[in-house]
Amino acid sequence: MAFEALHALLGTRFTTGASERALHGRSEAHFADMPPDAVAYPETTAEVAQIMRICADQRIPVIGWGAGTSLEGHALAPHGGVTVDFARMNRVLDIAAEDMLAIVQPGVTREALNTELRATGLFFPVDPGANASLGGMASTRASGTTAVRYGTMRANTLALEVVLADGRTIRTGARAPKSSTGYDLTGLFVGAEGTLGLITELTLRLQGQPEAVSAAICAFDDMHSAVEAVINTIQSGLAMARIEFVDAANIRSFNAHAQAGLAEKPHLLVEFHGSPSGVREQAQAFGQIVADAGGGAFQWADTAEDRARLWKMRHNAYYAAIAQHPGAHPITTDICVPISRLAEAVEETARDIAASGIPGPILGHVGDGNFHALLLPDRNDPDQIARAQDLASAMAERALRLGGTVSGEHGIGMGKRKYMQAEHGAAWDVMGALKSALDPQNILNPGKLLRAQ
Amino acid sequence: MAFEALHALLGTRFTTGASERALHGRSEAHFADMPPDAVAYPETTAEVAQIMRICADQRIPVIGWGAGTSLEGHALAPHGGVTVDFARMNRVLDIAAEDMLAIVQPGVTREALNTELRATGLFFPVDPGANASLGGMASTRASGTTAVRYGTMRANTLALEVVLADGRTIRTGARAPKSSTGYDLTGLFVGAEGTLGLITELTLRLQGQPEAVSAAICAFDDMHSAVEAVINTIQSGLAMARIEFVDAANIRSFNAHAQAGLAEKPHLLVEFHGSPSGVREQAQAFGQIVADAGGGAFQWADTAEDRARLWKMRHNAYYAAIAQHPGAHPITTDICVPISRLAEAVEETARDIAASGIPGPILGHVGDGNFHALLLPDRNDPDQIARAQDLASAMAERALRLGGTVSGEHGIGMGKRKYMQAEHGAAWDVMGALKSALDPQNILNPGKLLRAQ
Repeated sequence: MAFEALHALLGTRFTTGASERALHGRSEAHFADMPPDAVAYPETTAEVAQIMRICADQRIPVIGWGAGTSLEGHALAPHGGVTVDFARMNRVLDIAAEDMLAIVQPGVTREALNTELRATGLFFPVDPGANASLGGMASTRASGTTAVRYGTMRANTLALEVVLADGRTIRTGARAPKSSTGYDLTGLFVGAEGTLGLITELTLRLQGQPEAVSAAICAFDDMHSAVEAVINTIQSGLAMARIEFVDAANIRSFNAHAQAGLAEKPHLLVEFHGSPSGVREQAQAFGQIVADAGGGAFQWADTAEDRARLWKMRHNAYYAAIAQHPGAHPITTDICVPISRLAEAVEETARDIAASGIPGPILGHVGDGNFHALLLPDRNDPDQIARAQDLASAMAERALRLGGTVSGEHGIGMGKRKYMQAEHGAAWDVMGALKSALDPQNILNPGKLLRAQ
Repeated sequence: MAFEALHALLGTRFTTGASERALHGRSEAHFADMPPDAVAYPETTAEVAQIMRICADQRIPVIGWGAGTSLEGHALAPHGGVTVDFARMNRVLDIAAEDMLAIVQPGVTREALNTELRATGLFFPVDPGANASLGGMASTRASGTTAVRYGTMRANTLALEVVLADGRTIRTGARAPKSSTGYDLTGLFVGAEGTLGLITELTLRLQGQPEAVSAAICAFDDMHSAVEAVINTIQSGLAMARIEFVDAANIRSFNAHAQAGLAEKPHLLVEFHGSPSGVREQAQAFGQIVADAGGGAFQWADTAEDRARLWKMRHNAYYAAIAQHPGAHPITTDICVPISRLAEAVEETARDIAASGIPGPILGHVGDGNFHALLLPDRNDPDQIARAQDLASAMAERALRLGGTVSGEHGIGMGKRKYMQAEHGAAWDVMGALKSALDPQNILNPGKLLRAQ
């Protein structure tokens, strides 16, 4: 009956077809397929609210879907229900250049927004690698390579429109740069992984295109020197726009996949933003830190094309590594630790992975203390898969032991609920109480982030 | 009976004495006195939790108290109850210089923290003017002169320890620079004005002392040119560390109060942080914008002493204006608008105030679109007081009409609840639902921020 009502509302934009369900039951990560019972393609906030009311009436789960690039199974449908795909809500509604903000629908991807912004001299800085949807990026509190300078989605989302579990639509935040009028609801919905409401509009902060940009890649003889250089750079207060670590295994796949021609050693990839003299100053100071750590062999990327190639190579690290290991069952995980514990965290992880004999390139947004391991056990070897999962668990436990967090950017979804009690204790119950207050029927993305109900 | 238990717990650190109650029933703003029934001075989180449990058992209101510098009556006790004064929880627990963070108890003031940090090369940037407690600053999401560069308390609070309404103690956040593990509870308690829990420990982000600092004050013939210069500065992407507007009326009180010897015109007060060459570059670019707007007569403050004098003068603007109008009933209010609407907002406000005949200096953190009016009606003229309140209301309505917010930094407390429905609509009900979930008895700071229950 609910499906009839949804069909009446959306016509062919509502489907229970097997192929659409299958497409929305998969993720880019290691989870089993969990298709929804139906898929809806709303075009307006009013339609989203109507979908929500119909589903609430029958206690049908509702799962938001952006670009499907999440890595912790956020958009899978373990309890069935209706997946709301925001592909048709993909308009940039307003670019207020003078206020350095953009108002977008949730289905706009970050690349699409930046394409629209090209003529304005402004850009949207958050860059998780994948061409994710902005609604999805807000929902998972995405970050990525530029967060060290510009912050995560939390810092870059000024206001939201949200459809609640009962179909009410609210607005959080304002266009003003700051506000102290009541609870920070914007911050509450950013990172809530679609469990508290469906984001139907975002007001995003933009940044001015820097006058000068310079990027470089440099090599280190060992992981320890590279990580020490990162720690010294961050502690020196240098305003790095990006500072990324990749280990020798990644370089091997870059060489195979992108003909990078780099020495098979750990590398840092960095970028500077500022005035021409400011960028020069930063690059010099960084060069000194690298030299002190025994690194070198800088390759500079001064043209826009060279930089695009450099960051594309970095962003494709995941696919390059998988291409190197075609028979693997990839398990990707991320942790984030205080910068003072970064060397310890990276080196212990590397030792563990080496001892396991399972391929597992390490790379990350190390300026934030955030790094990833891409574990690549043989897909036909259940024992290897189990041991890879143990490696991922050991990383999570290590993060907590070092005062960090079990995820810097991938989020919880289905994959990391098992660590929530250890990380948050009674605060996880507080999250549950907030969830119950806003979604008492537990129909918004059930089975994710919160304690099983 | 509850009071007996509190006395048994705290001894002489629990009092129902008239003078202590009176001291905790006053604010720096225009509210009538509303004393609590008792005042408690805990020394540990365990004691705060115990106080909370005793009060919860008897449904006794509990109000947090920092330095008493709030401007919207946040810490008054309209429903009586126990005020928890954090004066004895004033220890800096840890300075983790390598991670650029400090862990403090809520009663530490921002000046005390910065004194402790002096030897480290780090500082805590948030500066609301008053020497407020850090627990209070987090609770009201304070900001001030440096937020344009370093953000508000929201951006600078990494983690919290909080005692909930039922006496449970939770920890939010981690020491890692970012996290995507569940709801952003840190962001929820920052700005909650003590209505969701009592903050008993804060993990704060620190900044490196800039290599070079330069400050200046410059004059404009009229308000319009000064505000235009601000808008152009912000839109140009200049990384101002501070950019403050003061009108001619403020300059008159500076001259009287601090022998400033300045022209009685609107002024901007600015500060630049960076490398020596970076600061020079910024100052040059800013000088050009000022010249284009017809401003000038720069006075530079290059020594630490000169800068301290400059910002002390700015911070004392409130007291200087009151000293100029000894018979006034001061009503201070703040609004925040998108930068593109700043000129409109400031000029309309100035016209309204001028037409009223009531003294009302305007000043503010204009780089964030945030400004204040200090309305000074005659305390013996009820009609003037009523008209001053109307001026404040008109400012709030103006902020909303221009896409802004009724408070950029002072918060809601008791003073601005009347605007919450207009600003937030159904989102105010969502705040109420969150409050009911975490404090079903409504004992934490009742009568503030939320709809009357």
